[in-house]
Amino acid sequence: MTTTIDINADIAESFGRWSLGEDAELVGLVTTVNVACGWHAGDPSTMHRAVEMAAQAGVNVGAHPGFPDLLGFGRRPIVIDDADAVDYVLYQVGALMGIASRFGVTLSHVKPHGAFYGSIVVNPDRAVAIGRALQTLQAGMPMLLAPGPGLDAMRADRLPVVADNAADLDFDEDGRNVIEARPHVRDPELVAQQALRMARGSVLTVSAREIPMPVQTVCVHGDRPNVIAVATAVRRVLTENDVEIRSVFESLR
Amino acid sequence: MTTTIDINADIAESFGRWSLGEDAELVGLVTTVNVACGWHAGDPSTMHRAVEMAAQAGVNVGAHPGFPDLLGFGRRPIVIDDADAVDYVLYQVGALMGIASRFGVTLSHVKPHGAFYGSIVVNPDRAVAIGRALQTLQAGMPMLLAPGPGLDAMRADRLPVVADNAADLDFDEDGRNVIEARPHVRDPELVAQQALRMARGSVLTVSAREIPMPVQTVCVHGDRPNVIAVATAVRRVLTENDVEIRSVFESLR
Amino acid sequence: MTTTIDINADIAESFGRWSLGEDAELVGLVTTVNVACGWHAGDPSTMHRAVEMAAQAGVNVGAHPGFPDLLGFGRRPIVIDDADAVDYVLYQVGALMGIASRFGVTLSHVKPHGAFYGSIVVNPDRAVAIGRALQTLQAGMPMLLAPGPGLDAMRADRLPVVADNAADLDFDEDGRNVIEARPHVRDPELVAQQALRMARGSVLTVSAREIPMPVQTVCVHGDRPNVIAVATAVRRVLTENDVEIRSVFESLR
Amino acid sequence: MTTTIDINADIAESFGRWSLGEDAELVGLVTTVNVACGWHAGDPSTMHRAVEMAAQAGVNVGAHPGFPDLLGFGRRPIVIDDADAVDYVLYQVGALMGIASRFGVTLSHVKPHGAFYGSIVVNPDRAVAIGRALQTLQAGMPMLLAPGPGLDAMRADRLPVVADNAADLDFDEDGRNVIEARPHVRDPELVAQQALRMARGSVLTVSAREIPMPVQTVCVHGDRPNVIAVATAVRRVLTENDVEIRSVFESLR
Repeated sequence: MTTTIDINADIAESFGRWSLGEDAELVGLVTTVNVACGWHAGDPSTMHRAVEMAAQAGVNVGAHPGFPDLLGFGRRPIVIDDADAVDYVLYQVGALMGIASRFGVTLSHVKPHGAFYGSIVVNPDRAVAIGRALQTLQAGMPMLLAPGPGLDAMRADRLPVVADNAADLDFDEDGRNVIEARPHVRDPELVAQQALRMARGSVLTVSAREIPMPVQTVCVHGDRPNVIAVATAVRRVLTENDVEIRSVFESLR
Repeated sequence: MTTTIDINADIAESFGRWSLGEDAELVGLVTTVNVACGWHAGDPSTMHRAVEMAAQAGVNVGAHPGFPDLLGFGRRPIVIDDADAVDYVLYQVGALMGIASRFGVTLSHVKPHGAFYGSIVVNPDRAVAIGRALQTLQAGMPMLLAPGPGLDAMRADRLPVVADNAADLDFDEDGRNVIEARPHVRDPELVAQQALRMARGSVLTVSAREIPMPVQTVCVHGDRPNVIAVATAVRRVLTENDVEIRSVFESLR
Repeated sequence: MTTTIDINADIAESFGRWSLGEDAELVGLVTTVNVACGWHAGDPSTMHRAVEMAAQAGVNVGAHPGFPDLLGFGRRPIVIDDADAVDYVLYQVGALMGIASRFGVTLSHVKPHGAFYGSIVVNPDRAVAIGRALQTLQAGMPMLLAPGPGLDAMRADRLPVVADNAADLDFDEDGRNVIEARPHVRDPELVAQQALRMARGSVLTVSAREIPMPVQTVCVHGDRPNVIAVATAVRRVLTENDVEIRSVFESLR
Repeated sequence: MTTTIDINADIAESFGRWSLGEDAELVGLVTTVNVACGWHAGDPSTMHRAVEMAAQAGVNVGAHPGFPDLLGFGRRPIVIDDADAVDYVLYQVGALMGIASRFGVTLSHVKPHGAFYGSIVVNPDRAVAIGRALQTLQAGMPMLLAPGPGLDAMRADRLPVVADNAADLDFDEDGRNVIEARPHVRDPELVAQQALRMARGSVLTVSAREIPMPVQTVCVHGDRPNVIAVATAVRRVLTENDVEIRSVFESLR
């Protein structure tokens, strides 16, 4: 039996005059992209171009809703109600659906962004409330989420989820990764080795211990300065080690 | 043959801590509502409550996209590209669709807001570009627009449109109405008489001349301080004069 | 020896098309106002009118900087760096100074708003960093802050501070008050009794225990629906009980 | 008698996660910088770093207020009232003064940005209203403005102004330059030749005609991709041709 893994990356994180990321190249290196929806990054024109690129590359297109925080790029925790969290997701995912309609693209998934993602990972009520609302918006729509109480609760509620984690972040002893406000250059080979471990069900923590981390997709951050080198190395090392890079959504259908 | 007319009003124009309008009452007095989509007014929670009220009242729910201008409430002209205009509409209409999905509500139409509306009325290219994009988003989706070059171009292009105008604004000699930054109290009887004229195909200008104004729906502004009195008078006067108040969208289907 | 107390209230919390508060009346009932600076409320025109009203009423005018959160009215905690907190204060206070220059008004103080205020009350490093930066901006500029670690640290650092607390909020057993996202109507007499207690150095907690609360100024929230009735009752009860209502800043000079 | 000219450039046009421009190098190549103030670009931290760099380089630091339009980078015309224009300037200039206070920096001037600048060049009432308000904020504070009705009206009103124009933009036959939404690479030698002409009182139009253009400072745009090469060439060509590069503000004092 072949081990398979999906690779996801964030795109559309430019805003107006400001460019960020290398979307045109990145869509050729991953299976799945998460498109920013305007609240932490990604104005409508940027979203438009990103969906177009992703559609041409034939990758899965999902929504990447964040906190309302352009100034902090959605990476700062904000205390909001769970009811608001649901509406924030529906607003942003709907907005991307509107943009994606131009290209006949149906969204494959939703992956929340940054500190909003972090708030859902640890909050079962919020995770389930969002997951249910997504089913009304589009039946079968899965959410990507790191292993934790949120993911467990969604599974218990039989909501579609995909276990996700970042191959390019540090993990503490509890398997939690730390959000970087501004990702720095990382050694592509080290990230690739971490991605390989994750494809096989574990991660290496900052104290060099290997702990279980069962995920179906691994993330590389589109705003990391050397993301293209990182994604290229991840692909190469996975392939060299007989891990098949394949869209996770095929198996869900 | 009975004369019929539709009455539309803007709702969801609160934002966060700030309340504006009397949505709960207003949805009971009109046939059609235009829900603000977050760019000039209307945060996701406000949109949520507005759609819920409108659904319970059984009125048509449309999107009311505006310029990105909370500070100016979307009533100040901004020079943007037509390509951006299309993406701005798709983003905002999609966002409302996301929110409306919670209530199983399908949108009936799109009516742009304020200065954005005004820019489309006079710009045939922009009107047609938006109209076409809306067909891809939802086949048959009509746009409400005042008579003018934009409406003419959409009709020539066989795009679904509904002729609209405001019963509660002043008209100059060319049939153009003037946007008020902050609507003031108006005599409900005068607005109602104007609505009656419009149902019969004309309007009275500021110099008391009656000119043709063929519309299918008349608008009352939800942020006018006495909008409830105005809408009530409009209903009464129309009914007393044998004009049937009926949703314009029934006839389009 | 007469007991004296200052009364402060937030004003300028409208934004663009949205009105909030009754600034014109409120400036006549207090000794000190805190003017919103655009980040949680208060656009430049609103700030302009508020400063003009306050100057005409002869009350102390201070800045009321908040988190960058129009959507949440600055009442939702956001995790930011202390270095950013300092820059956020300088930006907003400077902005108000710019507006106030039209009326020859020198600011008397700074009182942070909502969740930002709460974050400073409990964070000695943040409180001291802001307090020091304010001295460079305007020598002697005091900050209003509720008793707690932040206030203690500022005093230990010999920074100018004024002990402040809200007469119109609930207090828990530890003397902490709970921020209301949307203040509701409160019994003016109960608030006035609490203000009287605070003028005498204590407060009543939610479990009806009286605990020490040494403050120099009491706050009434400008966006409470019955703020005018509340402020009027506070003035009356204080005066009836021989508490002199007097600007706290006179004694600081 | 030596010909002298000032060189000004926009800095602090990053925003949060998004970097733009090469401020650290640029401050070493010009005499005067215009610091974005948060409305079209330039969050408080970015402003902080920019003022610090400029202070260390010993260049003049001015404010660069823009329209409230992060999405359009302040380069899209917005129709606002002149009264609002004044408040927008005071707000933003004051905000920069707040940030600059940390470094003991007194602002030397105000240069409006993009489409806001363009609106003042052609509007005498707006130019004079802003100029007067600036004198109340800081006596003697000059505004940089391109020759035109605004500049003429300010001079007639004896308000301090500095004639400015962009060496790196195209000029039409009427001496008006066209704002680029997104500046592209330009030949540094051609810009330098234009700067030399401007130092001598003329410019070359797009139809290769030389027309009068009496300015005291020439601008290079900080967000032009090759701005460092452009500014370097401008300095070299001016120096080779015996034009002294000197701060215009010395002569005003």
